[in-house]
Amino acid sequence: MAALGEAAARWAPALWRRAVRAASWLGGRRFASGGTQSPPTFGLLLDIDGVLVRGHQVIPAAQEAFRQLLDPQGQLRVPVVFVTNAGNISQCSKAEELSDQLGFQVEPDQVILSHSPMKLFSQHHNRRMLVSGQGPLVENARALGFKHLVTVDELRAAFPVLDMVDLQRRPKTTLLPRNDFPVIEGVLLLGEPVRWETSLQLITDVLLSDGNPGTGLATAPYPHLPVLASNTDLLWMAEAKMPRFGHGTFLLCLEAIYRKLTGRELCYTGLTGKPSLLTYRDNPTSDVYGANLFHQHLQTQQEGAARSCASILVCTGVYGPQAPSPTAPAPGSEGSPFHGHRDFGFRPELLQAAHVVSDLQEAVRLVLRKEGWTV
Amino acid sequence: MAALGEAAARWAPALWRRAVRAASWLGGRRFASGGTQSPPTFGLLLDIDGVLVRGHQVIPAAQEAFRQLLDPQGQLRVPVVFVTNAGNISQCSKAEELSDQLGFQVEPDQVILSHSPMKLFSQHHNRRMLVSGQGPLVENARALGFKHLVTVDELRAAFPVLDMVDLQRRPKTTLLPRNDFPVIEGVLLLGEPVRWETSLQLITDVLLSDGNPGTGLATAPYPHLPVLASNTDLLWMAEAKMPRFGHGTFLLCLEAIYRKLTGRELCYTGLTGKPSLLTYRDNPTSDVYGANLFHQHLQTQQEGAARSCASILVCTGVYGPQAPSPTAPAPGSEGSPFHGHRDFGFRPELLQAAHVVSDLQEAVRLVLRKEGWTV
Repeated sequence: MAALGEAAARWAPALWRRAVRAASWLGGRRFASGGTQSPPTFGLLLDIDGVLVRGHQVIPAAQEAFRQLLDPQGQLRVPVVFVTNAGNISQCSKAEELSDQLGFQVEPDQVILSHSPMKLFSQHHNRRMLVSGQGPLVENARALGFKHLVTVDELRAAFPVLDMVDLQRRPKTTLLPRNDFPVIEGVLLLGEPVRWETSLQLITDVLLSDGNPGTGLATAPYPHLPVLASNTDLLWMAEAKMPRFGHGTFLLCLEAIYRKLTGRELCYTGLTGKPSLLTYRDNPTSDVYGANLFHQHLQTQQEGAARSCASILVCTGVYGPQAPSPTAPAPGSEGSPFHGHRDFGFRPELLQAAHVVSDLQEAVRLVLRKEGWTV
Repeated sequence: MAALGEAAARWAPALWRRAVRAASWLGGRRFASGGTQSPPTFGLLLDIDGVLVRGHQVIPAAQEAFRQLLDPQGQLRVPVVFVTNAGNISQCSKAEELSDQLGFQVEPDQVILSHSPMKLFSQHHNRRMLVSGQGPLVENARALGFKHLVTVDELRAAFPVLDMVDLQRRPKTTLLPRNDFPVIEGVLLLGEPVRWETSLQLITDVLLSDGNPGTGLATAPYPHLPVLASNTDLLWMAEAKMPRFGHGTFLLCLEAIYRKLTGRELCYTGLTGKPSLLTYRDNPTSDVYGANLFHQHLQTQQEGAARSCASILVCTGVYGPQAPSPTAPAPGSEGSPFHGHRDFGFRPELLQAAHVVSDLQEAVRLVLRKEGWTV
């Protein structure tokens, strides 16, 4: 497990690093010329779900907050970057969606998605990768630098006898096996797919066959082909009263199947995205943990102009303003389930937010006041 | 875990018990009046996949075997019952399918499916059950005695904000929560469904909410609502060179998710079907194990007229005639993954078939000879 933990620890701060770089760059580009006020020496990294929106609804306090952040021309007064674990969407579409919701222009380079740090995995960009997820999947993978892609649907079409769960989609006749399909050299998991049974089966087939899913090997190779995954969120909060399954739940199923079939652990070459610690209820969200992790990283290693990263917890998301019930144990403590990914070591001290406020409006007020800006 | 193991041990022989009863009944009905030969005092319980058919192909030796078992009028000379872990089909359809494949009339009462023993769970027949699977799902559940059924699709329609994985199927607008939907009182898992993400999410919602998936409870109830499942086959053999996912793989995902979310084990009130021990390769199939288990049961407890149950392993299925490779450890031994269900205790001595023959034709010859019948 040490090697797995290492990979996770190595890549966990990558999302924050990219976000801070984006903010610095935006700061340099847009605010350097100044106005009546000196250019900002700080920026905001904002989560989306539960901070700005919940389901289809924009949270009113978030709209108020942006009134304080926009100048009379409708331009942001400080760099703002939106950091989300969403992966089944393009930066452009997410920026458009946010522009519509928030009522001002959000640029694609202000959006950091869970898989954005995959750009760093250049040693895998020339491999023939099986890619799993939904939405603009191939476009996203290409934008990250991956050049040779096979989708689960393409693999299914090439080997129709592999996908047998859905009785309606099973081949009706005997088909000759195909042996001219190029070998797959890695697996890229960008977000939760649809029809999990198909993706779980075909990804497992690729791993057990060393990239030749039409064949059967005497023993499954181990270590298996490289697996890169983004967004380990087990759960996320939408309109339903209980949290919904995220990509982390899909990964959990894949890990359980691989372990049951082979007796060994599925091994990730890389895991990107915010380190999810979203538990079933009353738990500070993954962003606080991630921000604190990145802050700690900054204490030993400078990233551009960034020197610190303060976490502010707002109470409009999964974490409600009401105190946890006295019978509920602290997250991660004995008797309480750990909802983070298997490969992310758990450090309870990083769950403590530097500030806890009711909503984004209060958070922005706090930041501006602390930075000596007029509200 | 003791309680879970107990439930499994209690119900594991139920399928064989039903099959033997069916065979005895058939024997009494059809063969009692006799002909030139005295009525048979034995019957055959036959697996289907890998014994009679493989994928769409009938195994030629199986066709030969039935020539020996049919009289000149095309009637079976001995009782034959077909025992399969298939669950997403009705007894009638399976009998029709077999009739087409084998070229003689197979009656529905000659077919025992994995969920047939669910008829015994009468204490749950009046509960409002969420039912999961595909094919003639509601018809099958009703035929087993369950009177109040809700399908996953019906639950999804009643609570559209629950099923959020598929971006295309998410509700496009905010919907008012429904509070007139009757409480669900149990979960009935008859076979692998399609769109596993939807079934996994909604079944989990029902268990965590104590049957009110529109609400959110402070703590998930435990013990949870009764869960009945049939067919724990992790894998099964079709036309692909590697085995395919069965209902056991779906159950494995559900168990992994429940454990991750709650920190507790999913608990089955009942598990029916053949005890699957089908491993990834070179392993005697679950039928040998099941037959031996039932034989052991018969040593202490008589079932109708049945006194013994001899296992015969044929080599036309997953188990090939070639010896296991010397590097491959014995199934279930240290270092080799255990592919049986979590709740079925593993007893290696039950894996040993009383006879190993090349195919069904040789098996039938052996039986007829041993019983003193003319071949």
